[in-house]
Amino acid sequence: MRSHYCHQVTEQQIGESVTLCAWVQRRRDHGGVIFLDLRDREGLVQVVVDPDRPAAFASAEDCRSEFVVRVVGKVRARPAGTENPQLPSGKVEILAEEIEILSRADALPFPLDEEGIGENLRLQYRYLDLRRPQMLHNLRLRHQITRHVRNYLDAAGCIDVETPVLTRSTPEGARDYLVPSRTYPGEFFALPQSPQLFKQLLMVAGFDRYYQITKCFRDEDLRADRQPEFTQIDIELSFVEEKDVMALAEPMIRGLFRDVLQTELPDPFPHMTYGEAMQRFGVDRPDLRNPLELTELTDLMRSVEFKVFRAAADAPHGRVACLRVPGGASLSRAQIDGYTEFVAIYGAKGLAWIKVNDLASGASGLQSPIVKFLPEPVLQEILQRSGAEDGDILFFGADRAKIVNEALGNLRNRVGTDLGLVQAGWKPVWITDFPMFEFDEKEERWSSTHHPFTAPQSTDLATLRTDPEHALARAYDLVLNGNEIGGGSIRIHREEVQKEVFAALGIGPEEAQDKFAFLLDALRFGAPPHGGMAFGLDRLVMLMSGSDTIRDVIAFPKTQKAGCLLTAAPSPVADRQLQELGIRLRPGVGDGLQNP
Amino acid sequence: MRSHYCHQVTEQQIGESVTLCAWVQRRRDHGGVIFLDLRDREGLVQVVVDPDRPAAFASAEDCRSEFVVRVVGKVRARPAGTENPQLPSGKVEILAEEIEILSRADALPFPLDEEGIGENLRLQYRYLDLRRPQMLHNLRLRHQITRHVRNYLDAAGCIDVETPVLTRSTPEGARDYLVPSRTYPGEFFALPQSPQLFKQLLMVAGFDRYYQITKCFRDEDLRADRQPEFTQIDIELSFVEEKDVMALAEPMIRGLFRDVLQTELPDPFPHMTYGEAMQRFGVDRPDLRNPLELTELTDLMRSVEFKVFRAAADAPHGRVACLRVPGGASLSRAQIDGYTEFVAIYGAKGLAWIKVNDLASGASGLQSPIVKFLPEPVLQEILQRSGAEDGDILFFGADRAKIVNEALGNLRNRVGTDLGLVQAGWKPVWITDFPMFEFDEKEERWSSTHHPFTAPQSTDLATLRTDPEHALARAYDLVLNGNEIGGGSIRIHREEVQKEVFAALGIGPEEAQDKFAFLLDALRFGAPPHGGMAFGLDRLVMLMSGSDTIRDVIAFPKTQKAGCLLTAAPSPVADRQLQELGIRLRPGVGDGLQNP
Repeated sequence: MRSHYCHQVTEQQIGESVTLCAWVQRRRDHGGVIFLDLRDREGLVQVVVDPDRPAAFASAEDCRSEFVVRVVGKVRARPAGTENPQLPSGKVEILAEEIEILSRADALPFPLDEEGIGENLRLQYRYLDLRRPQMLHNLRLRHQITRHVRNYLDAAGCIDVETPVLTRSTPEGARDYLVPSRTYPGEFFALPQSPQLFKQLLMVAGFDRYYQITKCFRDEDLRADRQPEFTQIDIELSFVEEKDVMALAEPMIRGLFRDVLQTELPDPFPHMTYGEAMQRFGVDRPDLRNPLELTELTDLMRSVEFKVFRAAADAPHGRVACLRVPGGASLSRAQIDGYTEFVAIYGAKGLAWIKVNDLASGASGLQSPIVKFLPEPVLQEILQRSGAEDGDILFFGADRAKIVNEALGNLRNRVGTDLGLVQAGWKPVWITDFPMFEFDEKEERWSSTHHPFTAPQSTDLATLRTDPEHALARAYDLVLNGNEIGGGSIRIHREEVQKEVFAALGIGPEEAQDKFAFLLDALRFGAPPHGGMAFGLDRLVMLMSGSDTIRDVIAFPKTQKAGCLLTAAPSPVADRQLQELGIRLRPGVGDGLQNP
Repeated sequence: MRSHYCHQVTEQQIGESVTLCAWVQRRRDHGGVIFLDLRDREGLVQVVVDPDRPAAFASAEDCRSEFVVRVVGKVRARPAGTENPQLPSGKVEILAEEIEILSRADALPFPLDEEGIGENLRLQYRYLDLRRPQMLHNLRLRHQITRHVRNYLDAAGCIDVETPVLTRSTPEGARDYLVPSRTYPGEFFALPQSPQLFKQLLMVAGFDRYYQITKCFRDEDLRADRQPEFTQIDIELSFVEEKDVMALAEPMIRGLFRDVLQTELPDPFPHMTYGEAMQRFGVDRPDLRNPLELTELTDLMRSVEFKVFRAAADAPHGRVACLRVPGGASLSRAQIDGYTEFVAIYGAKGLAWIKVNDLASGASGLQSPIVKFLPEPVLQEILQRSGAEDGDILFFGADRAKIVNEALGNLRNRVGTDLGLVQAGWKPVWITDFPMFEFDEKEERWSSTHHPFTAPQSTDLATLRTDPEHALARAYDLVLNGNEIGGGSIRIHREEVQKEVFAALGIGPEEAQDKFAFLLDALRFGAPPHGGMAFGLDRLVMLMSGSDTIRDVIAFPKTQKAGCLLTAAPSPVADRQLQELGIRLRPGVGDGLQNP
C-alpha cells in the first residue's frame, strides 16, 4: 500500500511519485495551501496540498490530527529557507495528488507532544502513549537488546529451550500466582518465579548450555521498579565454575553496550566481595559512580563512653560507621533534618553528624552536637580514617549492622544525587562471596540469600547447620550503577549437599520429598556440576534507555497495584467459570468489585 | 573444565592431551582393559583405561552407566580394524591418564537406548528421556527454527514486542485459564489464548510491523496434538492486504525448509478457496500428498428414489458425495466394516459402497448392496464423474454436509494412509475465502470461524446480519500436508464494522462495551488498516522433525489430562494461599486429591 516510510523521502526522490501511509501529526493552513506533517514509525515528512487538486484538497481539509491517510504525490525540494535540518526528509516536501483518509480520529484524550501527562491516563490509552517517539524508541531498543543477546548466546552454543509457564508452586521467596486446574479439581498450577529447576534439569539431561528469554511472575506488593510479570535472560551451563559463567556473561554485556549504545565498559569488570561492599557502601549493589564511602568505626567505638555508639559497637551484630560527604559542611539544618527523616525510613533512630570546619583547630574546629561526647583521640582517629577535610560533613550510623548499612547505604545514594557527586558513565562490578543464608526475623528462621539450590563454598557440610551465619555461597551478582542487573550461582549437583542445605533451611526430609522429589531424584541419576545466571531484561533496558521506570520499557505494563488500566484486568468472571474450576469466592469477597 | 566435546576428538588430536566432561554411555571390560564410551550433547568417544594407571583404573572400575566423569588422556589412533566409521571420533580413542567421577548414577528407571518405553515413564523422568539423541535433536531443531524465524522477521523490519501473560478474559472460542488476583479480591486475570488484541493495539500505536514468539494458553480437553500451553509465532502488519501478509509469510516458511531441512517447497504455494477444499476434500486443511478426492453427487441424487440419498440431497444443508479409492475393490468385508465404524465417529449413519469390478459389463460389473436402488443412468454418471476404473471402490456419504465432509474427509486420510497412497514430500496450500461465521448448534447462535476481529470481505455491512451464512471473511490459513500450520486475517479497523460484526455474533452494544471498550476506543483514534497471522510453532517443529506428537518437541510437556508427571503439577496448595486470594474450594472438591 505504500512505497516509502516517511524518513525515506529525501532529495534522492525529487521528481519521483511516492505513496505514503501515515498519521497526520499536524495540519496547518497557510496562504490558501494546506500543509500536513505525516508521521510513521520511522519519521516525519511534509505534504503540501494545493487547492488546484480539489479532491485531495477536500480530503486534506477534512483531516485532523491522528487521522490515518494514504497520500500519493510527487517529491519536490522545499522552497529555499523552509528546509528543516532536523529531519532526514527536511529538504523536500510532497505535493499531494491523492489523499485517501483510511481512518478518522476523535480528539485525543491527551496531546502526544506534551510532557508530564499523568501516568494513569497514559496507561489507559497505552496505544496512544506508545505513539510518542520516546516510547517507540524504548521498545525498539528492547528488541535490539534481545536480538544482540540471542545472537551472542546462539553463537556461544547455548540452546534456547522453552520451559513451562503452568508449573508447580515452589518456595523461592516470593508469593506465587496460582492457576486453578479444571482437570484436577482442588489443585493449582503456579506461574514460575523463574525457570530455575527446569534449567537445572536440562543440565541433568545433558543439554550442556541453555538460555531462554522468558517471562517470570511474582505476586508481590509492587515497588516502583517491579512488575508482576517481568522478563529474564536466563542462562545455565554445565561443567563450569564461577569464572566460566562470568566469562560468558561479561563479554555479552560489554558487547551489548558497545553495539547498542556505542559505549565501552571496563574490561574486565572489577570484582568485590559482599563483605567489602557492605563495609564500604552499606549495600550489596554499590553505585560506583558515587565516590562516597563508609568508614568503619565499630572497633573504635568499643572504647568510648558515649552510650549510643558504645552499645551499637558492643552488640553482637552491631555496627558504627560514618559517611564522609565532601563539601557537606555547608548543608543547612533543614537539609540535615531532611536526611534524618530519610534514614528513619530504614529504621535509624537518628542521624548524628560532625561538620568539619577548621581541622587545624582540632576538636574546636568541629561543629556537632556529639563532639562533646567523644574524646579528642577518638575524634582524631575518625577524621583520619575518613580522610575528612575542611568543609566536609560526617554522618554517623550506630545500630544493628543491618540498619546502619541500609541507612547509610541509602543516604550515600541520596546525598550523592543531591550534591551532584555521581559521575556520568557506566560502572559495572561483580559482587561475590555472598552469605548462604540470612536470618528471617519475622519467620525466625534462616532463609536462602539467593535460593535453596545454590552451592555452598565449603565442602564441610556439617558447618551449614552448625554455623549457618558464616557459610558462604558460590553466588555472584552483576551490579551496574547501583542496580543489580543479573545474578547467579554455581548450583548444588549432589543429592546429599542439597539435603543438607534443605535441612539448614528447616526443610525436613518429608517436606523436601514432597516438594522437590523430582529434583532429588534427578541428582541421583548423573547430574553434572553446573551453574548459571539470570539477567533482568526490564531493568537492563530501563538503564540503557535512560528511563526512570521499567513501565516505560514494557509495552503494556501493570500499575503498582498489579492492574491493567487499558483492558481493565483483572475482572470479575462468570460463576460458571469458577464452578468448572471447583472454586468459589469467599463470603464477602467481590461484593464491591472495583476494577483497576 | 574441558578442552573438547566428544565429537571434536578426531585424528587431528592424535598425540594431544584432551580433557572431556561427559556421561558414561557404556562400560566394557575386555582383556584386562576397561573401555568407556563417553557421551556429551555433541557425540561419543571411546576411552581406554589400562591397569598400569591404577588410580584411573580404579575410578573406571567404579564407573557405571550414566556416571558423570572428567577424563584427561592422550588421543591415539584406534588399532586397525577397530575403527567405527559411524562416529566423527571413530578413528581414535583416548588413553586415560586421569578419571574423576563428578557424579554417580543409580540404575536408570528405563534404558535410554530402548524404543517403546511407556510415555508416562518418559514424562516422569523427562530429564532422562531428554538424554535420548532423538529428543535432543528435536529440541535443537526447534531452536534452529525459532532462530531462522527471528532472523527473517528482524530483517523484515518487524519489532519483537512482549505482550502480557496476565491479561483480561476475552471470548475467543476456548476456555480461559484464570488467575485469581490478590490485589483485586474476587477478580481474575486470564492467560492469553493469543496476543490478538494487543498486537492490534500495537498497530494502532503505529508500530507498523510486529512479531513475537510467545506462549498461548487454552484450557481445553486435550486431543493428541494439543497442549494447554503452546507457542505461537505471532505476526501483525499495518497497511496490508491478504497478499502482503502472504508475501511476508510464504518466503519465511520456504526459507525455513531450505535452511533447516535442505528442502525446496513450491514457489509460489498454491491457493484454494475454502469452498473448493470442502468440495474436493471434505476438510479445510487438505493433505495434498493424498491423491484421493471427493466427487459431488448432491445434484444427481435429487432425482433418485433411494431415500437415504434423496433425503440428504434435498435437505437445505445436505450433501451426497463419494470417495473413489483406486484399487479398493480388493478390500475385505472386515476392512469395509472397519471403515464404517470409523466414519461413525464423525456421525455417519453408515458407509454405502460400490466395488467396480468390470466396467465393460455396466451395472452388473458393480458389486454393492445399493446398486439395486440406483437407476443405470445415475450409476453411469457416478462412474463418469468419479472417474472410476476396474478395481476401485467408491465410498458414499449422504447426510448433512457437515457430517458427510467430516466422515469422507477423515476416511480419505485414513484410507490414503492404509493403502500407502500418500506421497512423500511437502505440499503446502493457502486456504482462502473462509466463511465469516459458523452456526454453533449447541449454543444455537452464529460464532466466528476465525475470531470476532476478522474483517468481512463485503463492504455491505447490512448483509452480515441478514445473511451471515454467506458472509466471507478476509481470512487465510496455511496448510501443510494436512496440518494447519498457520492462519490469519485482515482485521477490522473501523469501529462501525466491529460493532456490526459483534451484533451478528449476538454481542450487544452493552456487552461489547463491557468486554471490548478498549478495542472500540482504539478504533476511534486513528487505527490503520492491518492484518497478520500466527503459526503454531509446536506443530511446525513436529512436522519438520518427523515426530508423531507435539509432546516430542516440547521439553516439559503436559499429559492429555493437562498434568505434569515430572513435577506433579498441579498440586494442592495451603489454605493460607487461597485465603489471600479471596477464594476457597467448593464443598467436596479436593477431598480425594489425586496428583497427576
